[in-house]
This record gives sequence, structure tokens and C-alpha cells, in this order.
Amino acid sequence: MKPPIIILFKTQLGENIGMCARAMLNCGLKQLRLVSPRDGWPNQSAKATAADADLVLENARCFETLEAAISDCHTLYATTARPRAQQIPSLPVATAVKKIQVDADGDRHHQSAVLFGPEASGLDNDAISRVDTLIHLPMNPEFNSLNLAQAVLLFGWEWLRAENESPASTDPQSHSLTASSKKELIIFLDRLESELENAGFFLTPELRPETVRKLRAIFTRASPSEQELCMLHGIVTSLKK
Amino acid sequence: MKPPIIILFKTQLGENIGMCARAMLNCGLKQLRLVSPRDGWPNQSAKATAADADLVLENARCFETLEAAISDCHTLYATTARPRAQQIPSLPVATAVKKIQVDADGDRHHQSAVLFGPEASGLDNDAISRVDTLIHLPMNPEFNSLNLAQAVLLFGWEWLRAENESPASTDPQSHSLTASSKKELIIFLDRLESELENAGFFLTPELRPETVRKLRAIFTRASPSEQELCMLHGIVTSLKK
Repeated sequence: MKPPIIILFKTQLGENIGMCARAMLNCGLKQLRLVSPRDGWPNQSAKATAADADLVLENARCFETLEAAISDCHTLYATTARPRAQQIPSLPVATAVKKIQVDADGDRHHQSAVLFGPEASGLDNDAISRVDTLIHLPMNPEFNSLNLAQAVLLFGWEWLRAENESPASTDPQSHSLTASSKKELIIFLDRLESELENAGFFLTPELRPETVRKLRAIFTRASPSEQELCMLHGIVTSLKK
Repeated sequence: MKPPIIILFKTQLGENIGMCARAMLNCGLKQLRLVSPRDGWPNQSAKATAADADLVLENARCFETLEAAISDCHTLYATTARPRAQQIPSLPVATAVKKIQVDADGDRHHQSAVLFGPEASGLDNDAISRVDTLIHLPMNPEFNSLNLAQAVLLFGWEWLRAENESPASTDPQSHSLTASSKKELIIFLDRLESELENAGFFLTPELRPETVRKLRAIFTRASPSEQELCMLHGIVTSLKK
């Protein structure tokens, strides 16, 4: 099965990147992407805490934007402890890893990724608006702040468990439409935003960012296939006329 | 349900004790015991990494020996990545947490504890000989070295999951004998060792420690009840005569 990519978003401390790499390799996850790490990349502090998971760090890819990092992915998950105002579906982690498996079994090109926010603040709303599904890690409700590497470890642990429990073959008939990549979805959303701009859709500049996030969340949640995205482009083109 | 006690054995770094306390509280575990921590107790470094899990540190109890730390416990588990020569049964972590629940449901005085070894070396054979059941954490076989707090977190996570899945009431009929406390078992084993010494059982001083460990493992694995321990004492007394 195609393992998910782990994406660390605006991580502050190199030490934490190293500890995440170690936790990933503990669970057999090897693909790490970094979005705009505060202290730059490569980072010596990361090496120091990675134990012998250097391989993961050496193969890590660093991106300036989240959009670039998820461009070739098809489904984006994020773990978050706080409830969110935006209407993004949430799954318990055990269900989420099963969905990752089913998607990969149904289409061998399907690439899932899991996004982890910065240490102190968590993911901002802009990043969250790119997320398909939130992953819920049910901890002690009175004390639920996990450090970054521990959140990565719990996700990886559940993924590994699902891998170990997974039957050798699964029914491949569940998918009939090809999932669109995030790149195609982002192109559509950027186009939509620009068309709406031209159309005078955004009443005030202040409200625009929040409105754009809500829009993104709607289409991200819909998880349109390639064919459906073509259709959506067609709709925008038609409406413009 | 009576939560298990976490016992950290000869931990080297205070930082790791703090991170373990945080991981424990994340999972609703609050009883921490320390056996002979290298840098003494209390420890400022532990406070620094515990985030807001000070409560766990403040209530932690520190002991000089493992025997004293487990004295009032009934079942002792240990997590270990390495296979062991001594014949101690091993359970997958999900099964182990269910056993902890069943024991606590069957007898509300039953106290389980989970032992975690020092950072670098893991548990020594002497400590292992006090353990009833090893807990297996199936990680990536090519890279299975977990740091201490992460091992505690994975155990706690599984315990929390079992707690959340547990039905409100369970069948209390499964236990008919009262489990002995570790104190009672240790008293018996110490007596047995001393009687064997007097009887010239140990052929050479060099081989004695290993022989004692094997003996302990046998009786620990048997997990004798209070009544059965009385019987064992009776057997020793009889044989002596």
C-alpha cells in the first residue's frame, strides 16, 4: 500500500523535525515534506534528534508554500486537537487510516498526505481550508496538548496497525472516478477566486480572506474527481459569459 | 476502572521523566513511580518538560528499589523491544490493556503497573525477572527504538482506547481467588532463596544470580494468589524438615 506523506507545516524547532523523522521511521513512514520551517533547511538540530532516522531527513523535501507541497497529493488530512469553526469533516484516527488504505487500494496512484501544524499555534485557518478531513486523536479532554512528534507517532502507530491488519488484497471496484490531484483543485480554486474578484463578488477586502477559506473548504470537502473538476471549470466559464 | 501505575526504572534524564508525565496525563494516567532516577528526585529538568503535567510529577513517588516500588501492586508489565531469553509471556499491547481492565473489573483492589527501563540500556535481567508479562509494541522491525516518552505514550494511548471502548459493566465472576500483592510474592521468593542457600542449592556463587532470576520468573509467571502463596510457603516449610 502507498504510505501517506507526512507534511510538517512551519515547524519552529529543528529538534522537533528530527524527532518526527524518528517517529515516522518507527512506524515505517519514510516520506517527509516540510513547508517553510522557521530555522531553514537542512537543519543540524534535526539531525541530532533523529537518532538513526537520517534517511528520512535526507530524503525530506522542503517547500515554500503548502500549495506546492500538496500539489501532487490527492487527499489531505490534518490532525488537530481544537474544534474548528469551518465545516471540515472529522474522522477518528483508526477510521482515517482505513480510508487512506481504501483509497490507495482502489487507485495505486492515489497519494494521501497528513499535515501537522507548528508547535505552539497549530494550523492556521488558511492551511485548514486546504484540508479534506481532520483526524481526531481522542486524548484526555482535560489535557490534550500533544507535542509534535507524539502526534506524528500516534498517527503512524495507527497506520502501522492498519497495515498489519490489512488483508493481502481488497476489492478494487470501489472507485470509478479518478481522484483529482491537489494541484488541479488549487488551479480551479485560484481561478474561481480570480473570477469572483473580477465579478465584484467580494464586498470588502477585510472579509475576503475568510470568504475564500470558506469557499475552499466547500470544494475541498467535495473532493471532486478530475472529471468533476472539468465540469466545475465549465460551470465557471459558462457563468462568466 | 483502576488505572495502571507507570514505573520508570533508573531513568537517566529528568527531561525524559517530564515528557513521560506529559504523555501520561495526555492519556489520563496520573500515578507515576520512579525507581532510583540517576539525577535524583525532585528534578527541575523534569518540571521544564512536563508542560502542564506538574500534578503528575508532584504526586510521583520515588523508591530506591524496584521491589519497594511494586510492593502493593498485583501484576507487573514491562514494555521491551528486545526479545528475552527468560521465559516470560508476551502480549500485544491491545491485549495487555484488556487484561489490565479485566483484572481491575474482577477485583477492585487489583493494581497493575507497567515498568519502563532506562533510556539507553533497557531493563536489566534482574528487573525483568519481577515482570509477569511483557508488552509487545510492534514497530517497524528495521527501526524499532522508541524513546521513553513515546513508549509511555503508546501504552497510554492503547489504555485510553480500551477505556473508551469498555462497556459500563463487565462480568465480575471471572475471579475466584484473591491475587497476591507483589510484596507477598517477593517475601516468598526471598524466603525461598534463603532456604535454598541454606540447603546448599547454589553450586557456585557465579551462577547464583542467573539461577535466582530464573526461579523468580517461574513463580512470577505463575502469578500465585494469596491462598496459593500460603500453600507454597507450606511446601517450603515441609520440604525443609
